[in-house]
Amino acid sequence: MNLSDPVHAQAADPLAAWRVPREPYYRPSGAEVALFEHAWRHRLPLLLKGPTGSGKTRFVEYMAWRLGRPLITVACNEDTSAADLVGRWLLDAEGTRWHDGPLTLAARHGAICYLDEVVEARQDTTVIIHPLTDDRRVLPLDKRGELVQAHPDFQLVVSYNPGYQSGAKDLKTSTRQRFAALAFHYPAAEVESEIVAHESGIAPDLAAQLVALAQRTRALCEQGLAEGVSTRMLVYAGRLIHDGLDARTSCHMTMTQALTDDPELTEALRALVDASFA
Amino acid sequence: MNLSDPVHAQAADPLAAWRVPREPYYRPSGAEVALFEHAWRHRLPLLLKGPTGSGKTRFVEYMAWRLGRPLITVACNEDTSAADLVGRWLLDAEGTRWHDGPLTLAARHGAICYLDEVVEARQDTTVIIHPLTDDRRVLPLDKRGELVQAHPDFQLVVSYNPGYQSGAKDLKTSTRQRFAALAFHYPAAEVESEIVAHESGIAPDLAAQLVALAQRTRALCEQGLAEGVSTRMLVYAGRLIHDGLDARTSCHMTMTQALTDDPELTEALRALVDASFA
Amino acid sequence: MNLSDPVHAQAADPLAAWRVPREPYYRPSGAEVALFEHAWRHRLPLLLKGPTGSGKTRFVEYMAWRLGRPLITVACNEDTSAADLVGRWLLDAEGTRWHDGPLTLAARHGAICYLDEVVEARQDTTVIIHPLTDDRRVLPLDKRGELVQAHPDFQLVVSYNPGYQSGAKDLKTSTRQRFAALAFHYPAAEVESEIVAHESGIAPDLAAQLVALAQRTRALCEQGLAEGVSTRMLVYAGRLIHDGLDARTSCHMTMTQALTDDPELTEALRALVDASFA
Amino acid sequence: MNLSDPVHAQAADPLAAWRVPREPYYRPSGAEVALFEHAWRHRLPLLLKGPTGSGKTRFVEYMAWRLGRPLITVACNEDTSAADLVGRWLLDAEGTRWHDGPLTLAARHGAICYLDEVVEARQDTTVIIHPLTDDRRVLPLDKRGELVQAHPDFQLVVSYNPGYQSGAKDLKTSTRQRFAALAFHYPAAEVESEIVAHESGIAPDLAAQLVALAQRTRALCEQGLAEGVSTRMLVYAGRLIHDGLDARTSCHMTMTQALTDDPELTEALRALVDASFA
Amino acid sequence: MNLSDPVHAQAADPLAAWRVPREPYYRPSGAEVALFEHAWRHRLPLLLKGPTGSGKTRFVEYMAWRLGRPLITVACNEDTSAADLVGRWLLDAEGTRWHDGPLTLAARHGAICYLDEVVEARQDTTVIIHPLTDDRRVLPLDKRGELVQAHPDFQLVVSYNPGYQSGAKDLKTSTRQRFAALAFHYPAAEVESEIVAHESGIAPDLAAQLVALAQRTRALCEQGLAEGVSTRMLVYAGRLIHDGLDARTSCHMTMTQALTDDPELTEALRALVDASFA
Amino acid sequence: MNLSDPVHAQAADPLAAWRVPREPYYRPSGAEVALFEHAWRHRLPLLLKGPTGSGKTRFVEYMAWRLGRPLITVACNEDTSAADLVGRWLLDAEGTRWHDGPLTLAARHGAICYLDEVVEARQDTTVIIHPLTDDRRVLPLDKRGELVQAHPDFQLVVSYNPGYQSGAKDLKTSTRQRFAALAFHYPAAEVESEIVAHESGIAPDLAAQLVALAQRTRALCEQGLAEGVSTRMLVYAGRLIHDGLDARTSCHMTMTQALTDDPELTEALRALVDASFA
Repeated sequence: MNLSDPVHAQAADPLAAWRVPREPYYRPSGAEVALFEHAWRHRLPLLLKGPTGSGKTRFVEYMAWRLGRPLITVACNEDTSAADLVGRWLLDAEGTRWHDGPLTLAARHGAICYLDEVVEARQDTTVIIHPLTDDRRVLPLDKRGELVQAHPDFQLVVSYNPGYQSGAKDLKTSTRQRFAALAFHYPAAEVESEIVAHESGIAPDLAAQLVALAQRTRALCEQGLAEGVSTRMLVYAGRLIHDGLDARTSCHMTMTQALTDDPELTEALRALVDASFA
Repeated sequence: MNLSDPVHAQAADPLAAWRVPREPYYRPSGAEVALFEHAWRHRLPLLLKGPTGSGKTRFVEYMAWRLGRPLITVACNEDTSAADLVGRWLLDAEGTRWHDGPLTLAARHGAICYLDEVVEARQDTTVIIHPLTDDRRVLPLDKRGELVQAHPDFQLVVSYNPGYQSGAKDLKTSTRQRFAALAFHYPAAEVESEIVAHESGIAPDLAAQLVALAQRTRALCEQGLAEGVSTRMLVYAGRLIHDGLDARTSCHMTMTQALTDDPELTEALRALVDASFA
Repeated sequence: MNLSDPVHAQAADPLAAWRVPREPYYRPSGAEVALFEHAWRHRLPLLLKGPTGSGKTRFVEYMAWRLGRPLITVACNEDTSAADLVGRWLLDAEGTRWHDGPLTLAARHGAICYLDEVVEARQDTTVIIHPLTDDRRVLPLDKRGELVQAHPDFQLVVSYNPGYQSGAKDLKTSTRQRFAALAFHYPAAEVESEIVAHESGIAPDLAAQLVALAQRTRALCEQGLAEGVSTRMLVYAGRLIHDGLDARTSCHMTMTQALTDDPELTEALRALVDASFA
Repeated sequence: MNLSDPVHAQAADPLAAWRVPREPYYRPSGAEVALFEHAWRHRLPLLLKGPTGSGKTRFVEYMAWRLGRPLITVACNEDTSAADLVGRWLLDAEGTRWHDGPLTLAARHGAICYLDEVVEARQDTTVIIHPLTDDRRVLPLDKRGELVQAHPDFQLVVSYNPGYQSGAKDLKTSTRQRFAALAFHYPAAEVESEIVAHESGIAPDLAAQLVALAQRTRALCEQGLAEGVSTRMLVYAGRLIHDGLDARTSCHMTMTQALTDDPELTEALRALVDASFA
Repeated sequence: MNLSDPVHAQAADPLAAWRVPREPYYRPSGAEVALFEHAWRHRLPLLLKGPTGSGKTRFVEYMAWRLGRPLITVACNEDTSAADLVGRWLLDAEGTRWHDGPLTLAARHGAICYLDEVVEARQDTTVIIHPLTDDRRVLPLDKRGELVQAHPDFQLVVSYNPGYQSGAKDLKTSTRQRFAALAFHYPAAEVESEIVAHESGIAPDLAAQLVALAQRTRALCEQGLAEGVSTRMLVYAGRLIHDGLDARTSCHMTMTQALTDDPELTEALRALVDASFA
Repeated sequence: MNLSDPVHAQAADPLAAWRVPREPYYRPSGAEVALFEHAWRHRLPLLLKGPTGSGKTRFVEYMAWRLGRPLITVACNEDTSAADLVGRWLLDAEGTRWHDGPLTLAARHGAICYLDEVVEARQDTTVIIHPLTDDRRVLPLDKRGELVQAHPDFQLVVSYNPGYQSGAKDLKTSTRQRFAALAFHYPAAEVESEIVAHESGIAPDLAAQLVALAQRTRALCEQGLAEGVSTRMLVYAGRLIHDGLDARTSCHMTMTQALTDDPELTEALRALVDASFA
């Protein structure tokens, strides 16, 4: 056995690479931790809905750490096919060898499988999870002729951003009905300030100033901005300020230029930033 | 022979993995059990029509158990091709090896083959079943040069949800005519309450309250909701309540947030839930 | 040689699997048997036109039996490619091996090749038959570098349903002109009754009642029904009745529910059935 | 060397399979034989334009026989790719082996290559012929890293039917300009009668009657018929009549039913046939 | 080493097959030879624009001969992918082997690479040339993990016909800006006559008559003709005349029938030809 | 080990081929060098926005040299898939072997990865970078079953030209929010003159004349020109002039003909050039 080969190194603990080594920093906004635990106890499939940067991914990481389960994350995209999740045959010196995909790995050995932005995936991806999300809890590997019975610790979590889904790209009703759902929003101002200060190292007052600025930008969504400044962008700005860059340049770099290419919206954002740090 | 390899382990009983080990819980709504048995005696291909979560999949599982036949289920999707059903050549240490697909496996060895949401599959999938559904009962494996004569115990069952098929996605007339059909609906209130109570462990009264709420949500379909609350969602809610979560939060999590992203419909659902558990 | 491998077992009589073992039941409606024999004597390519379930497939089976020729049937669909008909290279322990497709098999060894619903196939499929349907009677296997001269007993038969072809999906004029054509319709009432009674085992009177009902449903085509009840559906109904199911339930299962999902058309069919078996 | 393997059997005369063994029957309509020979002497690429069944394919066969050159015909279709013409790598026991496509075979060893219905092919197919049709007369095999200099006896002939090409499917101007062109039409009545009589064995008078009928059907093109009855269809009818079938049934089978599915046009054709053989 | 295998035979001089063996006949129309040499000295990427048959390909061949560099030409088409230019892995008896594509071959060993009709290629083809056309002069072979530094003698030349590009098919601005450009037009009458006489062998007077005719056809472009008669077509006509065919038939064959299928434009061309050779 | 094989030669320093050997000439326009260094210290993903030829690629090369990091550049295009960035399995004499793509190579060993024109890539490409651009800094290789933890020196830089992106082709909001952004414009006149003089060898006065001309062409953008003359085009013109070609011809070749095919815009550019060098 070649220990430097990650494929074989997994033999001892096939999920070793996906264990969450340290407690991720997560500041709850409400009852979401308790609700996740209720769903976990029944292994109810869970759907997290909310805007970009509202902390869904961090929350799942935190819960995986808290529940002591490995976490296998798949960033879904329009080329994500059923085979990418389930696995495929690879050619080897001794012929073909089956390679479990991330969903199969999670179902077989008992991880939380997190499908990020699940509506981006192709339809076959969402249908493949159906038999895993009803009482059967099975995953048919048609190409291998195997019916995987999910491990008792397997749970499926999916997320998406309902804000900018076109009508064409939406979860099928027959898929939605298989999930309990939690809605995410940007945290309340004092919570968000606490997060920004903790993550960037800047003073609480400055963090509060950044959060106030973010809330003003979110009001621009009605004027054509796709999404307002997220918590993550505030952390970026905070880090540059903590590093010695002036606040205005930091915000222009992480917010004004990053959020839009539209000249009018750029100007509006620039004015908001300049007014905040006059 | 490597017994740990599911592909070879099938040699003794190739359908072992697909036998239904225990009687699934199924509460009949009408004469559907007898009608399925009539069709089974003539091996008439059967088409189950009805909304999501109305129990079609559970019914087929139950009938497979009752008739003592293995059940091979395929969740059809827009990437399901004829090869996914019929099989393909795989490359091996000794060259190519034919791998029976789920339909071929069922036809060759005598299982019930259940194609769930069959209209989602590509057209070639639905045409491939034609010679299996007339008096010939054969499955031509063109790529292998073999004509499989179906096992006497083989039966084909397909399902779909006529409620939200677009005109473009419908069974071809030449396919429909090959099936006898059974229509499914949500069960009557007292039957549905019995199911919810049995599956979630809550008291009959509470189950009846949930069913009454579900019926009120189904009326929202005329206001734009794709489908109302299904029996499965009621079972989810019941389980969370049984686990100690309050009824309103349980229903918001499994119904309000899960059913829709539309703000107005969300509000309407929230009001219905709150009124039910005031 | 491994006799259990159908690919090699064909060596002795490569068409053994496609011989029609018993005389299929076929009740002629007119002069079609004689006309097919005229075309056969000149090996004229034959085009059968007619609605679903009007007996085209059974007729070809019968003629193959009558003429003592093997019959290779291909159910065409929108993924049927030239390679599916002509053949392809497969990888083997000793390298690549050519695998004749069904059309090549028929042309090389002298079978009737029946392309069912030929307009469903991709354009390359229909063009590939051109050199087989003029005086050359050759099939070029470009990928193998071989020019197959058709066996003297090879004949090509194709079918399609002109009723529901969109303008886009039609035989190319340059293809049509290569065929003599026979039009099929539902059989006359007394012929159809005889077929239904023979195939289902019910009494002639009851069969006549079912045929009369079918003719009334066919009138609904002008109100939006894609096609009326076919002979095959009457046989299905007859079998359920013969099995002891009451006539109304049998007809609802095999006709009312199977033909349409439209609520108004379902109601109209239900009324016709109920009136027939009041 | 395995003589039963057509790929290796070609080693002695790689074009043996494509030699025209007997003089094909061809009845010239004008100066086309001389004009082809003028083009041949300069190896000018030749474009044959004309309706289906007007004898283009037979003419090329005849000229190949007359000039003593092998003829490699490719029936182009919308899946015909550059690789189908030029060749590809195949996998062998000793690794990959290059397989010349029909165009490469013709260019390398000196055959006439005839691309039938060339506009049906994908664009890359038509561009691949450009360097073969100017003074360089080379065919670059990019995938093999070889530049094939065309054999002195190589000539390229293409055909298409300008009658029913949509605007989208047309030869690119940069392709057209590389060809000298000959236009084909149905032959004059006395020539066509002579052909029909010769090919079917019927008497000259009857052949003339069939030709007169064909001319009347061609007038229906202005009323929506895609194309009128071709010479080939007259030959089919003649053969059935010669076989003993009555003229009206023969014509309905080979013309009325074969030409159209439109009820009104069918009726018009039926009337023309019945009037011709009253 | 197998010298009959062109792939290995290249080892000594990998560009031997692409050297221009003889001086191609090229009659300059202006300063294009000097301008190409200026660009060559700085290895500026060069873009040749002009109508079909105006001599762009011949000019590049002539310049390659004049500069003593091998010329690798790729006729781009809508299926030309980056891999077709850059190369790919091929399977061998000893595993996979990298096969340089034409662009890599030219860049690695120092040839002029000529991408004919470059706008026809897929977008990835045009982007792949970017790093070759700025100061880096590198070609990244991502699939091989190699960064090819272009040979000092490598130059890139591309061409296209701006006349009939749709808006959708145009060079991206970020691609255009990487080229110096030369515009081509049909040569002046006396130059064109000289070319036609030289290439076909006919007398200068007759050549001048053909050129005058060509100029009249080019005026028809405003009435719907895609392009007028090109110099190449005049050479075709001249060769047929030199071979003894009368001038009118020669022109109808190489111009009237070759240029268009439109009946009115055909008639207009026919009249122009007949008037020229009355 | 075969040192001539670039794949194995990388074993010692896997990033050797991507080190920037010499200081690239870069003339800063503002504070961009300091801002890049701020972002680098926090390994913030960086987005460079600006028109073609405004120096984004040169700037990244310069920063890679300045920071002493290897630079792996990918020219994104509409066929760039996740596998092209992340890597794939290749077949070898001993079976399949994993081949790191450019993004994996950079993440694993610590290079700056520069995705040029990132919006051209397919959606799956942009989603694949998400887990690399948040606090996790991981790259999941689903097909290999490995989770690559990014090297501490890894940084991601992407660029695009906001000027001509259609609405359909834009960075997803969830992608944008992961980057700090720097906007690029053409340099100020005196800076641009200095660049042109340095890169082409012409005198500062002449360079200033070229820059003045460029600024006048940029005004034509409002009249339909996609983009004005870029700094790169001025360098091209300067080099031809330095080589002895007259200024007007140099500018017509590198600007007038290269920028557009529109006759009116060509005329306007020609007039501007002629007026500049009267």
